[in-house]
Amino acid sequence: MDWKVAILGATGAVGQRFVQLLRNHPWFKIEVLAASEKSAGKPYGKACDWILEHEIPHEIAEMPVVNADVKSVEKAGNVDFVFSALPSSVAGPVEEEFAKTYPVFSKASAHRLEEDVPLLIPEVNPEHLELVKIQKEQRGWNGYISTDPNCSTIQLAITLKPLMQFGLKKVIVSTMQALSGAGFPGVPSLSIIDNVLPYIAGEEEKIEQETLKILGELNGDKIRLANIQISASCNRVNVKDGHLECVFVELERKPSIEEVKEAFKNFKGEPQKLKLPSAPENPIMIKEEVDRPQPRLDRNEGKGMSIVVGRIREDPVLTIKYLCLGHNTIRGAAGAGLLSAELAAKKGFI
Amino acid sequence: MDWKVAILGATGAVGQRFVQLLRNHPWFKIEVLAASEKSAGKPYGKACDWILEHEIPHEIAEMPVVNADVKSVEKAGNVDFVFSALPSSVAGPVEEEFAKTYPVFSKASAHRLEEDVPLLIPEVNPEHLELVKIQKEQRGWNGYISTDPNCSTIQLAITLKPLMQFGLKKVIVSTMQALSGAGFPGVPSLSIIDNVLPYIAGEEEKIEQETLKILGELNGDKIRLANIQISASCNRVNVKDGHLECVFVELERKPSIEEVKEAFKNFKGEPQKLKLPSAPENPIMIKEEVDRPQPRLDRNEGKGMSIVVGRIREDPVLTIKYLCLGHNTIRGAAGAGLLSAELAAKKGFI
Amino acid sequence: MDWKVAILGATGAVGQRFVQLLRNHPWFKIEVLAASEKSAGKPYGKACDWILEHEIPHEIAEMPVVNADVKSVEKAGNVDFVFSALPSSVAGPVEEEFAKTYPVFSKASAHRLEEDVPLLIPEVNPEHLELVKIQKEQRGWNGYISTDPNCSTIQLAITLKPLMQFGLKKVIVSTMQALSGAGFPGVPSLSIIDNVLPYIAGEEEKIEQETLKILGELNGDKIRLANIQISASCNRVNVKDGHLECVFVELERKPSIEEVKEAFKNFKGEPQKLKLPSAPENPIMIKEEVDRPQPRLDRNEGKGMSIVVGRIREDPVLTIKYLCLGHNTIRGAAGAGLLSAELAAKKGFI
Amino acid sequence: MDWKVAILGATGAVGQRFVQLLRNHPWFKIEVLAASEKSAGKPYGKACDWILEHEIPHEIAEMPVVNADVKSVEKAGNVDFVFSALPSSVAGPVEEEFAKTYPVFSKASAHRLEEDVPLLIPEVNPEHLELVKIQKEQRGWNGYISTDPNCSTIQLAITLKPLMQFGLKKVIVSTMQALSGAGFPGVPSLSIIDNVLPYIAGEEEKIEQETLKILGELNGDKIRLANIQISASCNRVNVKDGHLECVFVELERKPSIEEVKEAFKNFKGEPQKLKLPSAPENPIMIKEEVDRPQPRLDRNEGKGMSIVVGRIREDPVLTIKYLCLGHNTIRGAAGAGLLSAELAAKKGFI
Repeated sequence: MDWKVAILGATGAVGQRFVQLLRNHPWFKIEVLAASEKSAGKPYGKACDWILEHEIPHEIAEMPVVNADVKSVEKAGNVDFVFSALPSSVAGPVEEEFAKTYPVFSKASAHRLEEDVPLLIPEVNPEHLELVKIQKEQRGWNGYISTDPNCSTIQLAITLKPLMQFGLKKVIVSTMQALSGAGFPGVPSLSIIDNVLPYIAGEEEKIEQETLKILGELNGDKIRLANIQISASCNRVNVKDGHLECVFVELERKPSIEEVKEAFKNFKGEPQKLKLPSAPENPIMIKEEVDRPQPRLDRNEGKGMSIVVGRIREDPVLTIKYLCLGHNTIRGAAGAGLLSAELAAKKGFI
Repeated sequence: MDWKVAILGATGAVGQRFVQLLRNHPWFKIEVLAASEKSAGKPYGKACDWILEHEIPHEIAEMPVVNADVKSVEKAGNVDFVFSALPSSVAGPVEEEFAKTYPVFSKASAHRLEEDVPLLIPEVNPEHLELVKIQKEQRGWNGYISTDPNCSTIQLAITLKPLMQFGLKKVIVSTMQALSGAGFPGVPSLSIIDNVLPYIAGEEEKIEQETLKILGELNGDKIRLANIQISASCNRVNVKDGHLECVFVELERKPSIEEVKEAFKNFKGEPQKLKLPSAPENPIMIKEEVDRPQPRLDRNEGKGMSIVVGRIREDPVLTIKYLCLGHNTIRGAAGAGLLSAELAAKKGFI
Repeated sequence: MDWKVAILGATGAVGQRFVQLLRNHPWFKIEVLAASEKSAGKPYGKACDWILEHEIPHEIAEMPVVNADVKSVEKAGNVDFVFSALPSSVAGPVEEEFAKTYPVFSKASAHRLEEDVPLLIPEVNPEHLELVKIQKEQRGWNGYISTDPNCSTIQLAITLKPLMQFGLKKVIVSTMQALSGAGFPGVPSLSIIDNVLPYIAGEEEKIEQETLKILGELNGDKIRLANIQISASCNRVNVKDGHLECVFVELERKPSIEEVKEAFKNFKGEPQKLKLPSAPENPIMIKEEVDRPQPRLDRNEGKGMSIVVGRIREDPVLTIKYLCLGHNTIRGAAGAGLLSAELAAKKGFI
Repeated sequence: MDWKVAILGATGAVGQRFVQLLRNHPWFKIEVLAASEKSAGKPYGKACDWILEHEIPHEIAEMPVVNADVKSVEKAGNVDFVFSALPSSVAGPVEEEFAKTYPVFSKASAHRLEEDVPLLIPEVNPEHLELVKIQKEQRGWNGYISTDPNCSTIQLAITLKPLMQFGLKKVIVSTMQALSGAGFPGVPSLSIIDNVLPYIAGEEEKIEQETLKILGELNGDKIRLANIQISASCNRVNVKDGHLECVFVELERKPSIEEVKEAFKNFKGEPQKLKLPSAPENPIMIKEEVDRPQPRLDRNEGKGMSIVVGRIREDPVLTIKYLCLGHNTIRGAAGAGLLSAELAAKKGFI
C-alpha cells in the first residue's frame, strides 16, 4: 500500500488542502507539486499564498513547483496517479493528457457529466468506479479520469442516499455556502460584509444535474439517471468553511421521523467496510440539539469527512425537511479526492 | 389629519425605529414614550441603548419615559392611539387594557391569531381591518387591537399575494434573517461570527400559520384561511438588517416567467391608491441583475418599505422560484405599524 | 459658479464616490467619465462594478466611458478641470499630461511629496494652494496638480492642527482601517473573516511623511516640514467604511483635557468661512460617550466630512491620548477632492 | 504528580477552557465543577452553554455542577487545589473562603493588586510565587491565592520582559481584542458587525497597573513596582479569539532590530526549564512575514501558549515598535492558570 502522487493545481485553495491532508497519509506520498506556469520553478512555499491555519509543512514548502503538463511532471518524479485540483477552465485537456498514462482523480467539473466518467462518492455509488474500465477501452487510455462531484452536491447526495429506500421523489434545497468554496482570492470582503450573495454561478445546475447521475444506477456500461426532481437555490454567506443546506424531500412511503433518523444513523458504505484511511466512522452524524448543525461548531466532525444532519422534522408540503452541513474543502473537495483514490487503490484500480 | 400617539416599548429595537420613522411624520406626532418600569422616569436618551445610525433626535432624547400602563400614559399626555412594540411575553394583557380605550397597532405576536383581530398588511388584506368592528362589539371595547405579522411573514406574504391569481397551491421558503430581528442585545457575537444559526424559535410556525390568515378571505365576520400548504426553514445569518428568503411556489395555472414578473410589477394596493405617507411607490421592486437582491445593497429600497424580488426562474419541482428581501425593522416592524395606522386613520378607524 | 469636470478613474471605488458626491453638486457638473482602456467605449453602468448602496444615477449609468488620456477626454467634452482617482501606479504621467492644460485635483499618491505640489486639506493648510503658481511657472504648464493626502493621514492631520497651538512634539498613532480603503476587489473575504491584518503596504510611511508636509509652513516658495516626530502602526479590520485611529501626542505646553476639547470644538477653517458646499459645519465633532467614536455609528457625521473625536484623556507616557474616526472614502478620498476643488474655485484658481 | 482540582465558575467561557485543557492533563484531574446557584444541581452538559468547537467530553457532561462554596465543593469531592474562573464581581470573598484551606489559582481581578498576592506569569516572574508564604503567614491561612493577570496584560508583559535588559523606559500599546475576551453572551452581534468598539471597561487601567507589578522586583516581602511608564488604548474588534497589540517602546540602550529579535527568540523561563506540561517550547515566536501575526492564522501557536511577535522595526518616536498576538482564552486565561498551578506544584507549593 504505497503510492506516489502528483497534485495538479497544488497552489490553489483546494490544492493546499490536498497538501495538508496528504502530509501524513498512510498510503499516498506527494511526489510532485504542479501548477500553472506562473508558479513553475518556484519553491512551493513561495509559489503559494498559503491560507490554511497550520503552517505549510517545512519539507513541502521547499519542494519545487513544476508546470502542470505530463512532461514536466514526469521529469520531476515517478508518480502512480494524479490528483487534479485545476481550475475547471483549464482542467479539461490537461486531465485528458494525463489520463492517457495515469489514473486521474479530479475535483474539476470538466468531465463530470461525460457518460464513461464516474462521478464518485465512495459511500454512495462505489460501483460507478467500474465505468473506468469502459472509459479506458473506449478511449484507448492506460489511465482514466474519475471525478468528484461539486462540494454542495456531495453533502446533499450523501444524505439523500439512505432516503432512497423510502422512495425518494422530489428534493428542494436552499444552500448557505462558505467563502472558501469560491477559492482564493475569491469573494471580495466588501461584497460579503453585512451581506448575503444570492447567486453562485453554475452551482444550482450542478446540484440539479450531478445528483441524478450520482444516485443513478449502473446498468451494463451506462448510468441510468435517478428518477428524481431536484431544485436548488444557492447563496454565499459570511462563513469561512462549511456549507449548510436546508433540504425538503418528498418520499413515496411516508416514514416516521424516527425511521428517517435510523436510516441516517445506520448508513455506512464501502469506505467504512474497507476501513479506508480517510473514511469517517459515520458518514452521517445526527445532532439532536434544536439549533444544530452550525458551520463553525460542526464542520470538523469526522475530521471534516462526516456530514452533520439536524432538525429532521415533518414537512407540511413535501414529506420531511432537515438541515445538512459538510466541510466544503475537506469532504467537499480534497478529502473527497483522497477517499475516491483510496477506494480505487483498495479495489485494484491503481 | 393630525393624531397624537403613544409608543409602548419605545426603548427596544423596534421602538427605536418607531421613534425614528415618526419623527417627521406628516400625520402622527409622538406624545408619550412608554416602556418597562426599569426605564420609567428617565429621559428617553438615558433609558434607551440607541442602536440606530442616526442620533436620537434631540427633542425626543429629553422626553421622559413613562411606565407602559394606561394610567401612566394618560397622565403623560392625551393620545389618539397607541403603537405597541412590547415584547410578546408582556404584550398580551397590556395591549388589552389599552384597547378598552384606544386603537392599538401592535407588532407583538400575542393577539395575531385571534379570530376577531386583523393581521394586517395594508397592500395585501386591507379589508381585514373591518374585523375591528366585530372585535369592539364582541369585547365591548371603545378601542381595538390590530396586529402586524411577523417580519419574515410580511415580506413573503406581499410577494405571494400577486401570485394568487395563478392559483397558489404550495410554498416552500428558506430564510436567511438579519441580526436585528432578534432585538438588542439579541444574538451574541460569539454565536454568529464565522457561522449561521439554523433555528429561530417560533419563526417557522409563524410563517406557516400567519400567512394562511393574511391571505385568507373575510367572509362575514370570519376569515376563511387560505387553502395553501406552506413550509419554512429559518436561519439567522451575519447581516445587520434585511431578511432574504428563497421561495419555491406551485401555481395551478403555469404562468410564464414574464407573466409572473408582470404580476409582481403591477402589484399595487390600497396604500398606493390612498397615497398613504409611508406607502412605497412600488410594494414590490424587481431586480434584473443575476445576483440580486442583496441585503446590504437593497434593503433600503422604497425607504425600507419595498420588497425587492429577484432571480425569478422556473422551478424543476414546483412551478417557479425566486428570492425576496425586506427590511425587517422597517417594512417588517415599525414601518408596518405606521402603514397600518395610516390606513386605519384614512379609512376613519381612528 | 459653474464648472464642468472630468473624472479620471471613474469606475473604481473612489471614482464611484466622486460620481455619487458630484451628482447634485451646486457648482460642478460631470462632463466626462474616463477610465482604463478596458472600460473605454462602454456605458458607465456596464463598465463599472458599482459597490455603493444607492443605485447609479440613471443618467450617469448611460454616459459613455472614455479612455483616460487628454485627447479622448477633450473629444468627449469641454471640461474646466479634472478629478483624478487613478491608481497610483498609472497616475503619475497621466496627471502630468492633463496638468499641462487643466487643474488636476488628485487622490493618487504619485505627486504628493513633490516640492511644488500642494498636499492640501482645506481646513488645515489652505495657503499651500499658492504653490500651484510656482508649479505652473516652473513647469511651464497652463494647469497644475494639487493633491489630497492619504485617507488615514487626512483625519489625523485635521485633529493635529488645533493641537499645534499647544506645541505639538510627538505623535504615535495606531490605526484600524476599513476594507473600502483597499478598493475593489481589494481584501479577500477569506483574509479578513475572524481576523485583523496588521500591515497595509506603504501606509505607515505615508502617515509619517505626509503629515510633516501638511502641517509645514509655506515659506516663500517652499514648505518647511513641521518639526514633529511621528510613528504609525496600521491595521486592516473587518469594517466596511471608516478608519479609526488611536492617537497619543506629546504637547510642549501641558493643556488640560478641557482646553484640548475646546481647541477641537472651536477649530474651523477656510471651508467653513467660505461656506464651501462640501464643508461640514464642524470639521471636528466630539463625542462624549465613553465608547465612541465607532465606525458604523459615526462615520457619516457631517455627511462623512466631519472627523469624530472621542475619549480625550491624559496619557501617562506622552501628554494626551484620544481616538479619531473619519469616513475614508468621503473625507478621506472623494470628499477631500471636492473640497479642494471648491477651495480652488472660490479662490480663483480655476 | 497527581492532584485533584475543583473549577469555580466552570460553566463560563473561561471555565469551559479550563475543562477542555484539563481533560487530558498529565498531573491534574477535574474532581469538582462548581458554578453559581443557577447551575448547581444540573449535569454540566445542561448547566453550560458550551461555546467551544469540540464537544464537551462525555464524561464531563454528566458530572453534576455544585454551588461555588467551600461546603458544597468539599461535599462533592476531595480536592488538592482550586482554579477560579469566577466573575470578578463575586470572586473576592469566595476565593478568600477557599484560600483558608486550599491553594487558589485565580483568573479574577479581585485580588490581583493586593500586596501579598502574586500576579504570576511563570516565564516572567516565577519568584513572585514566594509571596504566598508571606500571605499565608499574614492572613493565617492554610491555602493561598495566586492570581493571573488580565489577558491583554499577559501577552504584553511576556514580550516586555526580554526587553528589560535594554533598559525599558516607556511603553505605548494599542490593542485589538477578541470577542471571547468579553465572555458569553458578551458583545452583542449588532454592536460589532461592521464596527470596532474603542473602549473596554477597566482594560486600560489593568494593563497600566498590572504590568508594573509583574515586571517589579520581589524585595524581601514586597514587590517594588517596575519603573516604567505605560499607556494603553483598548479596542474590541470582530475576531473570535486572539488579542493583537501594537506596541511602541523606549529602550535606554538603543539595541538594533537584530538584537531585539535575538532577545525575543532566546527568551525562556522556568516553565521551559522545568518542562511544565503546559509550557510552550517558545514563549515568544517570531514571524518574519511582513503581514503577521494575524489572529486567525497564528493564535494557536504553541497550542495557544506562545506569544507571536512580528513586524519588529525602528520607531521614529520611541525606540522600537512591534506587534504581539496571544490566544486570550488559552495563554490569556485558562492556560495561564494551568501553567501557574503547574509551577506551584513542581516547586512544592501545593
